[in-house]
Amino acid sequence: MVSTTGDALPPSAPFGLKPDLMLTVAEARGRIIRTFSPLPTEQVPILDALGRVLAEDIVAGNDVPPFDNSAMDGYAVRAIDVATAREDSPVMLAILGELPAGVTTEQPVEPNTCYRILTGAPLPPRADSIVPYELTDGVAFGGWHGPEVAAEIASQRAVRIFRAVEPDDNVRHAGEDQRKDEVVLGRGVLIRPAEVTVLASLGRTSVGVVQRPKVAILSTGDEVIEIDQPLKAGLIRNSNSYALAALVRWYGGEAIMLGIAADTVESLRTHLLGGQRADMIITTGGVSMGDYDVVKNILAQEGSVSFWSIDMRPGKPVAFGTLDGVAFIGLPGNPVSTMVGFEILVRPAMLKLAGHSRLEKTAIRARAAHRISNRSGRENYMRVVVRQDGDEWVACLTGEQGSGIITSMHLANGLVVVPKNKTCIEKNELADVIMLDWPSMQ
Amino acid sequence: MVSTTGDALPPSAPFGLKPDLMLTVAEARGRIIRTFSPLPTEQVPILDALGRVLAEDIVAGNDVPPFDNSAMDGYAVRAIDVATAREDSPVMLAILGELPAGVTTEQPVEPNTCYRILTGAPLPPRADSIVPYELTDGVAFGGWHGPEVAAEIASQRAVRIFRAVEPDDNVRHAGEDQRKDEVVLGRGVLIRPAEVTVLASLGRTSVGVVQRPKVAILSTGDEVIEIDQPLKAGLIRNSNSYALAALVRWYGGEAIMLGIAADTVESLRTHLLGGQRADMIITTGGVSMGDYDVVKNILAQEGSVSFWSIDMRPGKPVAFGTLDGVAFIGLPGNPVSTMVGFEILVRPAMLKLAGHSRLEKTAIRARAAHRISNRSGRENYMRVVVRQDGDEWVACLTGEQGSGIITSMHLANGLVVVPKNKTCIEKNELADVIMLDWPSMQ
Repeated sequence: MVSTTGDALPPSAPFGLKPDLMLTVAEARGRIIRTFSPLPTEQVPILDALGRVLAEDIVAGNDVPPFDNSAMDGYAVRAIDVATAREDSPVMLAILGELPAGVTTEQPVEPNTCYRILTGAPLPPRADSIVPYELTDGVAFGGWHGPEVAAEIASQRAVRIFRAVEPDDNVRHAGEDQRKDEVVLGRGVLIRPAEVTVLASLGRTSVGVVQRPKVAILSTGDEVIEIDQPLKAGLIRNSNSYALAALVRWYGGEAIMLGIAADTVESLRTHLLGGQRADMIITTGGVSMGDYDVVKNILAQEGSVSFWSIDMRPGKPVAFGTLDGVAFIGLPGNPVSTMVGFEILVRPAMLKLAGHSRLEKTAIRARAAHRISNRSGRENYMRVVVRQDGDEWVACLTGEQGSGIITSMHLANGLVVVPKNKTCIEKNELADVIMLDWPSMQ
Repeated sequence: MVSTTGDALPPSAPFGLKPDLMLTVAEARGRIIRTFSPLPTEQVPILDALGRVLAEDIVAGNDVPPFDNSAMDGYAVRAIDVATAREDSPVMLAILGELPAGVTTEQPVEPNTCYRILTGAPLPPRADSIVPYELTDGVAFGGWHGPEVAAEIASQRAVRIFRAVEPDDNVRHAGEDQRKDEVVLGRGVLIRPAEVTVLASLGRTSVGVVQRPKVAILSTGDEVIEIDQPLKAGLIRNSNSYALAALVRWYGGEAIMLGIAADTVESLRTHLLGGQRADMIITTGGVSMGDYDVVKNILAQEGSVSFWSIDMRPGKPVAFGTLDGVAFIGLPGNPVSTMVGFEILVRPAMLKLAGHSRLEKTAIRARAAHRISNRSGRENYMRVVVRQDGDEWVACLTGEQGSGIITSMHLANGLVVVPKNKTCIEKNELADVIMLDWPSMQ
């Protein structure tokens, strides 16, 4: 869903009109994010809602728990009846019956009576507290016992209470977790296992969530071949489409693979047709300064361009605009540029489509294990391994940082952000690191 | 896959044999984890391998990149030919032709010649470096241009070079990312988008991963009803099965729902039959001290019991053993005890089945926003909200910590661990917090 207001140039603007327009990363990301709005809602079974964003307010239809119930195995009493109970002067109560979980009674607890009660069972009328069986001479619950013990328990008609309790002791009150008619989960909440549990406790079998973003992915370049084709001289495999599809899936979207377009306007146009049913089109390659970089050209001629260059490394040449009404992000063809560009620029947009409100990954402050220099003059996102060292985080570069070094992403669990005008982070200096995942995930 | 050695009591051991056996959390977790081994391997398409664990060493079948190639648009030269080039005394080279990406030539660069070359194109024979076009008087690449510019570029037969380059300048070398015959990804690696990209770059369309653990889930209790059934007095909805199924899925397993068993040995036995094809059976309820807690009884009589009590809160009554050769974990029936028990005791076992080597979630040191008291005398896992405050993490309790308060899990993103013998964490004291997710995911 692309907004029609905003920063895009008119469709016919020639591509070269703003050659000096080089946005900061924050400006570019902000411009991309502003273009998108959350997708419509769909109903899904609650287990399929995991990882999705709630699209409705969930109001409790009943109290949870639905009734006052016992938090212990013991005896349901009126606290006033056992107020004087002590080890050396117990109070004797008559047992009116037994209440396992799931069993209710309408016969109230009268003065000097009680019910034997099990965890989770509803409190009988007029009982206000539970005396755990350990504080009584009642037959011990639990353990493995045969029919003879059951018979003994059933035959017990009275119990001695050795300690006083206060009203409400060991009672779980109706609604203490969730109260009828209250909003328990608000729209916009991320659905994790805990939220599924809340939904189930309210009797919801399905729930409204924001649709998954559909992201169309196209690789470009005459030199690019499908990954299962034999390598020939000068050709490279299309790892970029898989990088992007994996990232789209990893962050909860649905990838639509459009294949590989040759470096001609015709091939590009044909392949892009499949992107019309997507919420976003991402291409790789064809956006830098080469003669054969037709992606930027088709965008400038047939779509609209918002920007095509970011003061960022890796990933300076990034084209953003719309084509036939679909948002279009053209990432550079180097694999690391593609992946980092996705993390920094595409992921937040995709999350916004999916209804998330917090679009950034968690960033931490980590101590540099060694000097990290930035000769790029741009905001530099370098691949690091972060580990825990006592109460601190320590970051190490993964080695060679060239934008073709795919393994630098494999080795990394974070991206250290080196500001544009900072030529280095000194050893032991604290730096911002965007966490891709966490040490425990290694 | 349950090991036959280890800590389990003989199948016939009566349940009450070790009434004083109360393991620490670490002992119980260790005993559970030791029982499991990684599952067998299966081949899956690389995109479906996301989140799974690699079950084979991945050896590079070719160098990546497969050939020396240009990192820039410019001219492929012999550095020696342009060693004297300066702004005021350029070197003139003859242009032998043009090399877009994907095009190779066998005609070498002879002295005082060059090729026009584009990013990603293979270096022609004998060229050792690239001069970016900005350091030449070559027609500028890039931007949108029509056929007349293309014609001008094609007509250019020589180029002036204004600056010297060193050998290897702006060259990406074959194998600088991945070298033929080297192990690029080792077995045991978690497959994230970066690893999918590496696999694609090596031409792998499918890959061997450890199978997903199948976890059977059974809820027990006469008072428990399916979530879509009408609530009646004394009954509660089966949110536990959904809690567990959601957790199993969240952490990469496959949940097998066995429904709800009544508190009879017959019902339990019937429902447990479906668990025979699982790698692990989890039940909720039926493991505490109540007379109707038949789960522990069936385990003691018909299976083997390793332990049935942990010095932990919430979740003290946890039964662990085997039943018909399948590992069996009986969690308590309170929803929070079930969820926390899963996170602390079941998740690491499931991850080990799935082939992971690091089984713990990341724990951080967070400052307590207020006093957190632990009157339980047990290792207490309390629900907290962790937020970032400058370089620090700060933890706040989510409110009521009763084991029936499902919403305490909804509000939490971490579990603060209060040691057994520590009666409180003071305000501003640092405490260990196991992160369930991260602030950015709120």
